[in-house]
Amino acid sequence: MRFDDNICAPASPAGSGAISVVRVSGPTALDSVDKLVNFRRGTAAESKGFEVKFGVVPGLDDVLVSVYRAPHSYTGEDAAEIGCHASPYIVSVIMQRLQRAGCRIAEPGEFTRRAFLNGKMDLAQAEGVADLIAADSQASHRLAFAQMKGGYSKEFRELRAQLVELASLVELELDFSEVEVEFADREKLASLLEQARGRVESLKASYSVGNAVKNGVPVAIVGAPNSGKSTLLNALLREDRAIVSDIPGTTRDTVEETMVLDGVRYRFIDTAGLRESDDTVERLGIERSLGKLRSACIILAVLDATGTPLENLESARTISSELSPDQKVIWILNKCDIAPRDPAMVPGIPELIRDLQSITGDTLRLSALTGSGLEDLQEAIEDCGFGLGSAEGAIVTSARHYSALCEAADDLARVSEALDNQLSGDLLAEDLRAAISTLGSIFGEITTDELLGEIFSKFCIGK
Amino acid sequence: MRFDDNICAPASPAGSGAISVVRVSGPTALDSVDKLVNFRRGTAAESKGFEVKFGVVPGLDDVLVSVYRAPHSYTGEDAAEIGCHASPYIVSVIMQRLQRAGCRIAEPGEFTRRAFLNGKMDLAQAEGVADLIAADSQASHRLAFAQMKGGYSKEFRELRAQLVELASLVELELDFSEVEVEFADREKLASLLEQARGRVESLKASYSVGNAVKNGVPVAIVGAPNSGKSTLLNALLREDRAIVSDIPGTTRDTVEETMVLDGVRYRFIDTAGLRESDDTVERLGIERSLGKLRSACIILAVLDATGTPLENLESARTISSELSPDQKVIWILNKCDIAPRDPAMVPGIPELIRDLQSITGDTLRLSALTGSGLEDLQEAIEDCGFGLGSAEGAIVTSARHYSALCEAADDLARVSEALDNQLSGDLLAEDLRAAISTLGSIFGEITTDELLGEIFSKFCIGK
Repeated sequence: MRFDDNICAPASPAGSGAISVVRVSGPTALDSVDKLVNFRRGTAAESKGFEVKFGVVPGLDDVLVSVYRAPHSYTGEDAAEIGCHASPYIVSVIMQRLQRAGCRIAEPGEFTRRAFLNGKMDLAQAEGVADLIAADSQASHRLAFAQMKGGYSKEFRELRAQLVELASLVELELDFSEVEVEFADREKLASLLEQARGRVESLKASYSVGNAVKNGVPVAIVGAPNSGKSTLLNALLREDRAIVSDIPGTTRDTVEETMVLDGVRYRFIDTAGLRESDDTVERLGIERSLGKLRSACIILAVLDATGTPLENLESARTISSELSPDQKVIWILNKCDIAPRDPAMVPGIPELIRDLQSITGDTLRLSALTGSGLEDLQEAIEDCGFGLGSAEGAIVTSARHYSALCEAADDLARVSEALDNQLSGDLLAEDLRAAISTLGSIFGEITTDELLGEIFSKFCIGK
Repeated sequence: MRFDDNICAPASPAGSGAISVVRVSGPTALDSVDKLVNFRRGTAAESKGFEVKFGVVPGLDDVLVSVYRAPHSYTGEDAAEIGCHASPYIVSVIMQRLQRAGCRIAEPGEFTRRAFLNGKMDLAQAEGVADLIAADSQASHRLAFAQMKGGYSKEFRELRAQLVELASLVELELDFSEVEVEFADREKLASLLEQARGRVESLKASYSVGNAVKNGVPVAIVGAPNSGKSTLLNALLREDRAIVSDIPGTTRDTVEETMVLDGVRYRFIDTAGLRESDDTVERLGIERSLGKLRSACIILAVLDATGTPLENLESARTISSELSPDQKVIWILNKCDIAPRDPAMVPGIPELIRDLQSITGDTLRLSALTGSGLEDLQEAIEDCGFGLGSAEGAIVTSARHYSALCEAADDLARVSEALDNQLSGDLLAEDLRAAISTLGSIFGEITTDELLGEIFSKFCIGK
């Protein structure tokens, strides 16, 4: 693939500072640089690449230009990075002069798009570059880095290769179908297919962790009014983020803050207290709390050690009725600093306590006010399985990839059904081909301009 | 000068984007880089410099490292620029690892401070670097660039050399004073001295333009209440910056906005209308208006074509009584769209009109509301002499340099007086030496740690 025009863009973040980088790429990009810069020695176009050249942009700035020669550059084209002083005025003048010297302003992601189209990286790797820039925690960074470096694509390529092998067995059968010989060992087909389906399913399953890690793991703090949820949020964040008062129902809207624990970003969501209410505004808040509870990966269910067992039982029942099996719930008995040490000591009916314990199991005893027990809570959160500590293999973080996997899973389910029903090979082959093509779209084997436009338009300028 | 430690800092502006640059410098800075980065080929420490090397920071990012060898680097030391993806997370991890690998975080301006102490640039040039980064218009950039490139220092060095020559003539006289021979031709001394004093004075005088250009040329819009000053500001800026109403006295606080005209940044200051008032708040506003008028370089004095000659005469008298000779004033007759074409046609007493014209001379006729005449006004502003179009030689923009020039001027005035009074050479020599040393402090011939600390602490991190 060869483009006939040169592109340029500021590549470092906007602002003032020591160094800004302006990037150019294209068949005659180095000629444009030579028009812009008077070099102390030689020209950019004469450079063999991987060289830094000192020069002056007349009347504007001293610059250091890194020169790259095709195909050994990010884009695969002749390219250069112009390092000037980080002044918005200087960058804007350099951009103007580059345009007069034969470059046009690059669209968002256009450098990476060229890198992809020139075969420097596959599509999943290109998407990994954007994720890498956006990653703000160790865990999300780790996934993006693996994707950019190609480890992620490798798994999809292997899976696709497995399906191609499967398809070739089926096609072989088709070729000889006229002589009514059943070449393909249907049992071997079925076994290979089940293996592939298993891999697709486990990749699909990884998305719940991958998505949470990429966008922050949502942790809902829920419980009865005045059970100390906002105090708990503030204690976790070690700052006064949420408004706290003794008045039940102080928190009406949901309050959200993020925190990195052991390399993973968690989004803590403080919610309005759960109770029966006739107040319209409060009921809206409670409905919103339940929504946050349902969409969270981890739920911190706060019980009030100073409350009666009946009150706690009611709120525990409400919470547990909303939980789904793949959500992690941590039951917390808050206000333990002012409550009797043993909840069984709280005046109440022993049956209620047993009912409560049958729902909540072990509860974590803490005091959000004094901070005692907070470390245990942090450990419990870290143990919820979003730490990637032992995660192996590809973890899907992209909604696009997840949706392709779902599609491929459906195709493969149809192949499996056809195989079970002893249907003929051409029916199997069609669904198999669809699955192969869908998996190929993940790393960009087949693409459309529309798809590329959608992916790269989300990139920043200069990348 | 040799420093024994390595410094590192993010050098590009903070934020997300395609490329961030982290900079290191110091005697073993390249060893630190080799600990941080696995290079595809060779090591940074083996590089001959002016080379870009591709490598991987394990588990973190792909990087391109530009290597510079002492003394051919910005600081004059071994140095490198690490280009990584512009992600705050990645930059922070690189900074952590560099610190573990033997670098410490640089103080603001420390790279440039090392460059100065290693003789890569003089002090005025170093200050020019900071000004260059901050420059936001063509004119302020041009002055900073000239200063960074050393053209500015050259004038001070020449001036200082002239004084050294003068001093040597005086010292010669001193050496032979015992034999009571007056070697030095006192007339030649006086002539050389006047020449030097003239140069000092013209450099001092350049500061009023230089300071205005560097910080934006203050333009005060003053006039009677409801003469359309805010409408004029909005018309100049082509936006609704100031609140406009028919009610006189709408603008109480001063409103300030900047605009670049022909490469120069002007700070337009809308002010409260000038009139006699008993209202305490309004009088405070008027006092502030007069303060802005006095400190402005250019005054747009707005008269109201719909007002009576007496009203206009009153406000013109107030304005002209505040003007100083080096201020430029542009008299504007506003609201010409709804006023009779000839101000003489406005009902009123002919004597008043003559009085008014004797103050205002030619007035520029415009309508801020319709925009007619605005281009003439812009031209009139551009003609006020802040355009640097024909400016030659050094223009002082630094308060530090201006204050050194004032000090040197005083020293030289004393020398001149001593010469006039036929005082002995040793008295002349003392003041001459003081002036020489003061001028030398501008480009850093003599410095103190305190002075350097003050200058470089204003730099950004990484420069």
